[in-house]
Amino acid sequence: MKVLVLHGPNLNLLGVREPNTYGTQTLETIESSLRSLASELGVDVEFFQSNSEGALVDAVQGARERVDGILINPAAYTHTSVALRDALLAVAVPFVEVHLSNLHRREPFRRRSLIADAAAGTVAGFGADSYALGLRGLAAALGRRGG
Amino acid sequence: MKVLVLHGPNLNLLGVREPNTYGTQTLETIESSLRSLASELGVDVEFFQSNSEGALVDAVQGARERVDGILINPAAYTHTSVALRDALLAVAVPFVEVHLSNLHRREPFRRRSLIADAAAGTVAGFGADSYALGLRGLAAALGRRGG
Amino acid sequence: MKVLVLHGPNLNLLGVREPNTYGTQTLETIESSLRSLASELGVDVEFFQSNSEGALVDAVQGARERVDGILINPAAYTHTSVALRDALLAVAVPFVEVHLSNLHRREPFRRRSLIADAAAGTVAGFGADSYALGLRGLAAALGRRGG
Amino acid sequence: MKVLVLHGPNLNLLGVREPNTYGTQTLETIESSLRSLASELGVDVEFFQSNSEGALVDAVQGARERVDGILINPAAYTHTSVALRDALLAVAVPFVEVHLSNLHRREPFRRRSLIADAAAGTVAGFGADSYALGLRGLAAALGRRGG
Amino acid sequence: MKVLVLHGPNLNLLGVREPNTYGTQTLETIESSLRSLASELGVDVEFFQSNSEGALVDAVQGARERVDGILINPAAYTHTSVALRDALLAVAVPFVEVHLSNLHRREPFRRRSLIADAAAGTVAGFGADSYALGLRGLAAALGRRGG
Amino acid sequence: MKVLVLHGPNLNLLGVREPNTYGTQTLETIESSLRSLASELGVDVEFFQSNSEGALVDAVQGARERVDGILINPAAYTHTSVALRDALLAVAVPFVEVHLSNLHRREPFRRRSLIADAAAGTVAGFGADSYALGLRGLAAALGRRGG
Amino acid sequence: MKVLVLHGPNLNLLGVREPNTYGTQTLETIESSLRSLASELGVDVEFFQSNSEGALVDAVQGARERVDGILINPAAYTHTSVALRDALLAVAVPFVEVHLSNLHRREPFRRRSLIADAAAGTVAGFGADSYALGLRGLAAALGRRGG
Amino acid sequence: MKVLVLHGPNLNLLGVREPNTYGTQTLETIESSLRSLASELGVDVEFFQSNSEGALVDAVQGARERVDGILINPAAYTHTSVALRDALLAVAVPFVEVHLSNLHRREPFRRRSLIADAAAGTVAGFGADSYALGLRGLAAALGRRGG
Amino acid sequence: MKVLVLHGPNLNLLGVREPNTYGTQTLETIESSLRSLASELGVDVEFFQSNSEGALVDAVQGARERVDGILINPAAYTHTSVALRDALLAVAVPFVEVHLSNLHRREPFRRRSLIADAAAGTVAGFGADSYALGLRGLAAALGRRGG
Amino acid sequence: MKVLVLHGPNLNLLGVREPNTYGTQTLETIESSLRSLASELGVDVEFFQSNSEGALVDAVQGARERVDGILINPAAYTHTSVALRDALLAVAVPFVEVHLSNLHRREPFRRRSLIADAAAGTVAGFGADSYALGLRGLAAALGRRGG
Amino acid sequence: MKVLVLHGPNLNLLGVREPNTYGTQTLETIESSLRSLASELGVDVEFFQSNSEGALVDAVQGARERVDGILINPAAYTHTSVALRDALLAVAVPFVEVHLSNLHRREPFRRRSLIADAAAGTVAGFGADSYALGLRGLAAALGRRGG
Amino acid sequence: MKVLVLHGPNLNLLGVREPNTYGTQTLETIESSLRSLASELGVDVEFFQSNSEGALVDAVQGARERVDGILINPAAYTHTSVALRDALLAVAVPFVEVHLSNLHRREPFRRRSLIADAAAGTVAGFGADSYALGLRGLAAALGRRGG
Repeated sequence: MKVLVLHGPNLNLLGVREPNTYGTQTLETIESSLRSLASELGVDVEFFQSNSEGALVDAVQGARERVDGILINPAAYTHTSVALRDALLAVAVPFVEVHLSNLHRREPFRRRSLIADAAAGTVAGFGADSYALGLRGLAAALGRRGG
Repeated sequence: MKVLVLHGPNLNLLGVREPNTYGTQTLETIESSLRSLASELGVDVEFFQSNSEGALVDAVQGARERVDGILINPAAYTHTSVALRDALLAVAVPFVEVHLSNLHRREPFRRRSLIADAAAGTVAGFGADSYALGLRGLAAALGRRGG
Repeated sequence: MKVLVLHGPNLNLLGVREPNTYGTQTLETIESSLRSLASELGVDVEFFQSNSEGALVDAVQGARERVDGILINPAAYTHTSVALRDALLAVAVPFVEVHLSNLHRREPFRRRSLIADAAAGTVAGFGADSYALGLRGLAAALGRRGG
Repeated sequence: MKVLVLHGPNLNLLGVREPNTYGTQTLETIESSLRSLASELGVDVEFFQSNSEGALVDAVQGARERVDGILINPAAYTHTSVALRDALLAVAVPFVEVHLSNLHRREPFRRRSLIADAAAGTVAGFGADSYALGLRGLAAALGRRGG
Repeated sequence: MKVLVLHGPNLNLLGVREPNTYGTQTLETIESSLRSLASELGVDVEFFQSNSEGALVDAVQGARERVDGILINPAAYTHTSVALRDALLAVAVPFVEVHLSNLHRREPFRRRSLIADAAAGTVAGFGADSYALGLRGLAAALGRRGG
Repeated sequence: MKVLVLHGPNLNLLGVREPNTYGTQTLETIESSLRSLASELGVDVEFFQSNSEGALVDAVQGARERVDGILINPAAYTHTSVALRDALLAVAVPFVEVHLSNLHRREPFRRRSLIADAAAGTVAGFGADSYALGLRGLAAALGRRGG
Repeated sequence: MKVLVLHGPNLNLLGVREPNTYGTQTLETIESSLRSLASELGVDVEFFQSNSEGALVDAVQGARERVDGILINPAAYTHTSVALRDALLAVAVPFVEVHLSNLHRREPFRRRSLIADAAAGTVAGFGADSYALGLRGLAAALGRRGG
Repeated sequence: MKVLVLHGPNLNLLGVREPNTYGTQTLETIESSLRSLASELGVDVEFFQSNSEGALVDAVQGARERVDGILINPAAYTHTSVALRDALLAVAVPFVEVHLSNLHRREPFRRRSLIADAAAGTVAGFGADSYALGLRGLAAALGRRGG
Repeated sequence: MKVLVLHGPNLNLLGVREPNTYGTQTLETIESSLRSLASELGVDVEFFQSNSEGALVDAVQGARERVDGILINPAAYTHTSVALRDALLAVAVPFVEVHLSNLHRREPFRRRSLIADAAAGTVAGFGADSYALGLRGLAAALGRRGG
Repeated sequence: MKVLVLHGPNLNLLGVREPNTYGTQTLETIESSLRSLASELGVDVEFFQSNSEGALVDAVQGARERVDGILINPAAYTHTSVALRDALLAVAVPFVEVHLSNLHRREPFRRRSLIADAAAGTVAGFGADSYALGLRGLAAALGRRGG
Repeated sequence: MKVLVLHGPNLNLLGVREPNTYGTQTLETIESSLRSLASELGVDVEFFQSNSEGALVDAVQGARERVDGILINPAAYTHTSVALRDALLAVAVPFVEVHLSNLHRREPFRRRSLIADAAAGTVAGFGADSYALGLRGLAAALGRRGG
Repeated sequence: MKVLVLHGPNLNLLGVREPNTYGTQTLETIESSLRSLASELGVDVEFFQSNSEGALVDAVQGARERVDGILINPAAYTHTSVALRDALLAVAVPFVEVHLSNLHRREPFRRRSLIADAAAGTVAGFGADSYALGLRGLAAALGRRGG
């Protein structure tokens, strides 16, 4: 079972950027914990982060027929990228949407997700744990399909 | 560590009610899986379900200074109960909001949660797994506070 | 053929409450006329009124696999109860929605019904006759299915 | 007691047009059943259908001081014709509004009726039975006035 | 100087229809007073009333290059007819819009006029005098152009 | 018969201010023509202009039980002054609202009048003629009441 | 003179719940002060608190023809309960609406009251004093009627 | 292959009406070019124009089971006619919607088409060429179905 | 303890203006009752009324560091004056907002108060008693601070 | 005559991505048919596809003073890219907007195009034929200008 | 080159009023710095502050044909005064709008400026420096026109 | 003191693109004037322009802990880029937002800035001078902090 983990814009600054909102862990720490969890769950993970909408669309397209699921934290593009939505629908790979922070406590425009209705599930507000919970949920969902 | 699991209206019909939307597991099955997971996580769980808004408010109030966290699937009251929101804010117990289905795929009025901005985290769309993921997330959050 | 007739909050005050809007017949008179009509139509009717949303949800759930149709005047809960909607969808019993008054002549918030799109039919504005017309419509609809 | 039954645009295609939405009965069948019911209720009925808003306005005007009630299915003009509303208010003949389909299940613009607040009652969603129920309701209402 | 006076739907019922809102004068009386005023102002008037949107559009088109101005009370079509707006813009004849009643005191949908922004002037709320004032205003405006 | 003519803010600049929108006549010219028309109609007129909302409210209050009607061009205060509305309602003197320009051709916020629903009539878009038409309409309305 | 004082959901937690918003007095302290004030004003008071919408509706119905006025702090149900509004209208007992906190400083959904337009008066933002002021206002209003 | 070409209100004035917006070709010229193109494409065309909504509805109904496709420029009725939408859905003949002008550059109410979501395709903004392009598109679509 | 009582526009007409809405007491009577109550409460009161927004802003500014509290009935300026809000915030004197009538029963634009969220409390709908209740509430609030 | 054909994000997946919505032709097939049509029309075409908003902006800028027209299917960027709109306006090259699918049948956010009001014409809903029709329309428009 | 500097309501309290929002400089300090900068730029400045909308309108009118530019901080009237907008448009003197605070960080109603679209430029959020930057920008703009 | 000057999409076309809206100066001219002003102010400036949202996000991230302030003209991304907002918040470098044109005179969607509430100040509408004024404002603000 193979899962692509996608990080949207500015997540490369994790640990640095607004720690009150996003926590103090860096992206490296998160990826390393996820790798451990993945191996425990028998899942193969790969990671990609970009600040560019087009590069993220390319990455989603590249996952087609190559991975079993996508774990995505689209960050700012959650609210503005129809292109990312179209890519996810086009490749038809099951995906889970995760967010570190509780979007309902922030600016009103963060309440709208352009991909949530197409997701296999969503997790938000648990900080770095959102990724771990999302991966567990995705693995379980894929397991049921695959089995 | 003690957690109260609250189920909102009509969840007593799980397994029966609209299986395409809510899955085929009954509430009993879900509670029994949660009990296993809880014991694995070193958490004490108790359960309560009601179709009455007032009874759910009473239950939240009764949890004050007695439990460490609440795992709540408010079902229909997610969208209509300010009283439940007020109760959760009043007792000041950390809580996690879970939903079986993906609310973004359903009627527009299901997009507004009256409690999400106060939650320690939210999980939605994984079917019965939403409860398990929510419990894990809640336990981890409580663990960090407690530690 | 068995039909449950549900009356929402404050309908126990019929004949007393705002007679200009709701007419001067009491709920007893209405139920007694309905009983006559039901017997004429070969339908078995039972009645339930409550001011509590939860009790009405319980009543709908209790009708599952026990009655063939529901005739419901949800009164105030028409506009505020997602729980009632969910119960009606969950039990999957055909139902007809009736209102004594013409909701379009009243406060704007009375224009939205949270259950109308799921109803087998709606009748409004005929005073106590709304119940009788609704029962006729429901019986005919059930007859066609049953036949 | 004399009642004019008005059918709005495209109802002449009944039985042909979108049978999933409107049923398979033709307008002739409906009118013939209504005639039987009318005679049973001691009501004199006449019928008029037109695709033209102006012709329907003319028909309503022509009913002034000549009929006791109007049973109207304004179809598409329900949502767009202020002229029809004005005509109905101008002639001051009690009228009942009926619809074959459940408007709440269809396009959002079908939720607004420009005449509903002026109607003596409304019936919707029962297919061809909507007409029969509407006629019964109208006859009863006229009976009470007339008596 | 030649002026076409157009009356929209239901104005043929003037004097009969809702006298509290529209006054007790009939359309004949109004036209006869207007004829006197027109002759006093040196204006040639002709009149047309219809309940049909299409017939009113035809009448506006027929006025092209034949009259100097149009005095129009579009009644219900004020709020719903883009076709009438298009006709008035197409023939490019200056027109004045009049209303008997004060539209701001009535239903909210009467606040929007689809032709007002193209009018040479508007008069509303003076009952039958609205026509006379509108004719005076139109004649003066045409006089200035013509001079 | 006594009429107070009130001019709102910036009307003292008439003839100077944006002649494309408001015409080239000064306020003096308009008042002098109105005086002639008033004398022809047997009406006594007085005039008041102010740029201050409070001064206009004072003027309306001062007209109570002293004049028979008010002809008002509230200019900018049309859209922003609840105080002027309250004053006009408080003194209960019939008033006519006039505007030089066609408000529907300008900024959207000019479409809302805070006093129009209380006016005996409105005239707009005829340039300086709007005042004359308004005075005629007001005189006729007062005449009918007085007679 | 007899007055029923109704407390909505979560008010039983007063003094405990969010003291920054609701103050540190308990419901018992407030009721005891109210009892003193009532006796000073020659008013008989009784109290009822519930977290259940239905129970509050029952209490309002029970007050019919038994008390002269109702002092109600509907708390969360202010914003969501049409049933409570209907009950208050149905029993036709004058009532005053009070709130401890300033609703305009809180979440936007707290700005809408479903009962305010039917109240004899409203008091908000004075903490526990809101009850006392409301009782004084209610007593004075009843005194004027009764006298 | 047979195609009905329908022209909505005011299109009979083409070449005359607002040439800046609609171009200088008359409807006759357009129809004659379309006839040539149709013959080149092996399509039989007939034409109908009306200013009346009802007549256009009649024309659409008359096309049922008689033509293979409809090319329609509904003009003003694009934005206001639910009746036309219902007729097109009722006859279930594939249709293409065309507009001479770019509706997005004009009044905001021209942005809403009541039929676009049911069209086999739409073409707008090319002036008289819109018809030709629409006919080509319709013929190709019918060809694929027919083949 | 010193309190400034401010009356907004048109309150000088009290007793005269729309007695159905505002009651029959004059401003003098109200001020005299308030003076008695103030002396009973050990409060020094002064009064100011103006129809001018600027004069009211000046009065609020003049109260800075000179009075302990402001009791204000902003009347029409409640809904339109940001300047008054800014003045009240600038002088940072605690204030109570009062209204004679129940604003929720009147025009929709009266539902928005531009100062309510900054008030120490609000009282509305008790007629002249609103002032007395507001003064009591203000005095109590100041007493707590002062003590 | 030279035309640049621009394809927005995810169009490289054509034939693969959601064939029910977008058809089964690949982008290569479409481009090859367009090349044939272009040569028939005497037009020189070049193609560019990108998933990156910035790259598409660069491509539009690069077309300035080098091509005579642009045929663009902006796909997802239709609804979100102000930058693309600005580029198209900046280079001032006539362009035609095409869409494969009927945007009115899809998610509501697809109804808004950020470039449509600046286009020389739009074609939508004909599948791959949309490109061909758009190219014909563009060539004709350029021909008229160029001629 | 002559410039009038206008300060809106409550700016006379600068340095006193909410220093966190508006800074600690008084209006005198700001005017004195501006005078220095003006002399450096070869500009003649005069100052006017008022809490009255009418007085500000008068001041703008008085500037007509007497000054070359206006530097205005309309404060609260930014959001509510159509009269000020009309005055600025009427005198047709170029003006720059300045604000001390960042309006986007404050109440939502501060986001709308009724004059911004007519300004030669706007500066906001720099505290007292906003005036200086605005004067520089105005002087440069006038210099280009004048040169 | 070091300042990064960022230019958003299409600004590389300045002088070429819509000169009526954006002026005739090229980006080179603007940068060269800014360099002179910067040296006069003792500020070190560097410049970056890109049409790609991702590249601009990268540039902002790269400025972290390297520059003292950012002067940004986000152009089209002002209205659509949450990613840019997040980057600016993440690096926590004070920034000033500038616009060449007056956004309030253009399309409605240009009225919303996704970064304005986080800016140290904004300048708009002065053409190329906006940059110079913004740099002065930024330098002064940094000076105060730094000093």
